Amino acid sequence: MKMVDDDLYAKLGASSKKEAVHDAIKTIDKGLYPGAFCKIVSDISNRGEYCSIFHSDGAGTKSSLAYMYYKETGDPSVFEGVVKDAIVMNIDDVLCVGVTDNVFISNNLGRNSRYISGQIISIIIKEYERYCKELTEMGMNLLLCGGETADVGDLVRTLIIDASVFATIPKKDIIDASKIKSTDVIVGLASDGKSTYEKEYNSGIGCNGLTLARHGTLSHDYYKKYPEAFDPKLEEKYAFFGTHFLQDPIKDINLTVGQALLSPTRTYAPIISEVLKEIRSEIHGIIHNTGGGQLKSLNFGTGIKYVKNDLFKIPSVFNLIKESSGTSWKEMYSVFNMGHRMELFCDESIAKEIIEIANKYSVNSKIVGYCESSNSRKNLLAIESEYGKFEYS
Amino acid sequence: MKMVDDDLYAKLGASSKKEAVHDAIKTIDKGLYPGAFCKIVSDISNRGEYCSIFHSDGAGTKSSLAYMYYKETGDPSVFEGVVKDAIVMNIDDVLCVGVTDNVFISNNLGRNSRYISGQIISIIIKEYERYCKELTEMGMNLLLCGGETADVGDLVRTLIIDASVFATIPKKDIIDASKIKSTDVIVGLASDGKSTYEKEYNSGIGCNGLTLARHGTLSHDYYKKYPEAFDPKLEEKYAFFGTHFLQDPIKDINLTVGQALLSPTRTYAPIISEVLKEIRSEIHGIIHNTGGGQLKSLNFGTGIKYVKNDLFKIPSVFNLIKESSGTSWKEMYSVFNMGHRMELFCDESIAKEIIEIANKYSVNSKIVGYCESSNSRKNLLAIESEYGKFEYS
Repeated sequence: MKMVDDDLYAKLGASSKKEAVHDAIKTIDKGLYPGAFCKIVSDISNRGEYCSIFHSDGAGTKSSLAYMYYKETGDPSVFEGVVKDAIVMNIDDVLCVGVTDNVFISNNLGRNSRYISGQIISIIIKEYERYCKELTEMGMNLLLCGGETADVGDLVRTLIIDASVFATIPKKDIIDASKIKSTDVIVGLASDGKSTYEKEYNSGIGCNGLTLARHGTLSHDYYKKYPEAFDPKLEEKYAFFGTHFLQDPIKDINLTVGQALLSPTRTYAPIISEVLKEIRSEIHGIIHNTGGGQLKSLNFGTGIKYVKNDLFKIPSVFNLIKESSGTSWKEMYSVFNMGHRMELFCDESIAKEIIEIANKYSVNSKIVGYCESSNSRKNLLAIESEYGKFEYS
Repeated sequence: MKMVDDDLYAKLGASSKKEAVHDAIKTIDKGLYPGAFCKIVSDISNRGEYCSIFHSDGAGTKSSLAYMYYKETGDPSVFEGVVKDAIVMNIDDVLCVGVTDNVFISNNLGRNSRYISGQIISIIIKEYERYCKELTEMGMNLLLCGGETADVGDLVRTLIIDASVFATIPKKDIIDASKIKSTDVIVGLASDGKSTYEKEYNSGIGCNGLTLARHGTLSHDYYKKYPEAFDPKLEEKYAFFGTHFLQDPIKDINLTVGQALLSPTRTYAPIISEVLKEIRSEIHGIIHNTGGGQLKSLNFGTGIKYVKNDLFKIPSVFNLIKESSGTSWKEMYSVFNMGHRMELFCDESIAKEIIEIANKYSVNSKIVGYCESSNSRKNLLAIESEYGKFEYS
């Protein structure tokens, strides 16, 4: 059943803009660099020339989908991917303020022991350790410091996987997105494909919009089968209203629907690391297109109109979600990354160097748009795509 | 309906011993002090004489109870208490390794936006900030660094409130519970009463065992009324099988049942701070009786038999839970703190000084037991109470 609706994501109980949260934190201290992508605070070791970043994020409802996939296939290793999601959602956020090394991490798991066995918890904790080692070998130096696993079946339907990261870096190395200039270009790093540091093809989905991706793509047959995988108060017409089964193949990418929706979030750590090593001072801002999808940059910079007029070809997984769910193109851009999860803001003359570095890692990169003055304090965004021109503010 | 059952807590889907988790982390690196109360890692600022602690914990299912109380009374400020729980569960854990100052904190909230409004999120985030300031004024210097609020109604029935803390301290100041001696006494710090730094009488419940406390104390009338407050797969006979209503008064403590069960976890920060300032080198170990209740120390020290033969008078809230739920005394001690949430291990000659410091803050304190050799590598515990002698290992 296709929905014709301009605010599907909100109807599913999620929010791409998180208005309530932004409102709640309005009066909270914004830290040392109020316009930076993450909150930055004073150095924990009291060194004046350093600062610290303490950041939390998680895999959101992707774990609920992993649970369904596990039940369908019997393969508990699917939860390893969600661990990568929880870790990358954190480290790619802190990459945006310039942190590329020496990150400490802790995890926070909440499970319903009725559905999530000790074996699955063991797989999850081991993958935390293994993937931290893999990222360390890639140069990020990630140290797993511990965590908490709570049996909270009265709160959690299946499983929630969150993580927190802590880092300290010299103040001079901070990338402060408030410095995005109205003369900058926007260099995008593709979210899909197979980078040199990935073992499998990445669908590009990342770890946002999964509530819409799950319900909008998957068949209503799952409604009765997995009541534990969604809110029972969700109107039945919005629960798994898509046209696909988890094991349906997707023609052009050699993944099933389940694999594509669960494809682990790609980290851009090796690329951002090298970019900052080479040309840190030339990078005015880095934005991770997470909650809010392509609209994320609206929250950063002052008086900028972001014009994205040459986006990447939309990865198949987003076409699949769009077609199955009937979500409008305008909303799709506001929920999903639609092709690039990371964007860098710099002078046009710098773009080539970034693109060359990304290409070395087999990650597609190009200038996807540019900035101009919005002629007010307010930021604006225009997306000019083959599906139309969409304006956001 | 009273249960006659030796493993009620497990039947409710919770676990006081967390066997699955302990099993899962068996092969994970234990950090610099493998026998310490929290995992301790190398200093994030690479100072050889320092080390770091990155710790995560949360309010568990207490938020589900706060939700019911809020629905019954219309008062959203009840969520402030649960914020205190999430914070204190973290800071009182790190107190146990000697951290008494300069703690950075981040929060991780997951909500079902159907039940938890933006107003409630705002109350929660503001209380995080306010209570951090209060603890800072008390000398702990707690810095709120940010956090994440996720709309995850397909995962979370109502609300989950977790937090993480980060601290660095000199290695010489670490309290390492592996140093608990078979000649030590156990000094307990009471969990109930009204300390000089609390505005209200504390029932002593802390933030563990709430799954049993909720279901075992509250009336089955809530079963139909709040299906969002528990796992629908919980056998009906175990769901709210107690005899009380939230607003029933408890005679001897001037709190309602709801207020007693929701009484915010007391921090022992001012007391532990002063104890460590005065006699740090004399303290062999500090144990926070959280998950596992009075059995917690079994996980620390080597070859110790813990004998607790002079426990505090059991706070009314635990008698209430015991009587209403029919939980055995043996299990009660393994789920709840039963009167003291913090215990210090030291030579008998030192106890007086700790007790005097605690008394200054109007927190009851006394020698609740002693250690002896278990005559093997294994730890043992004997609780000698007016309700019988119970042995654990």
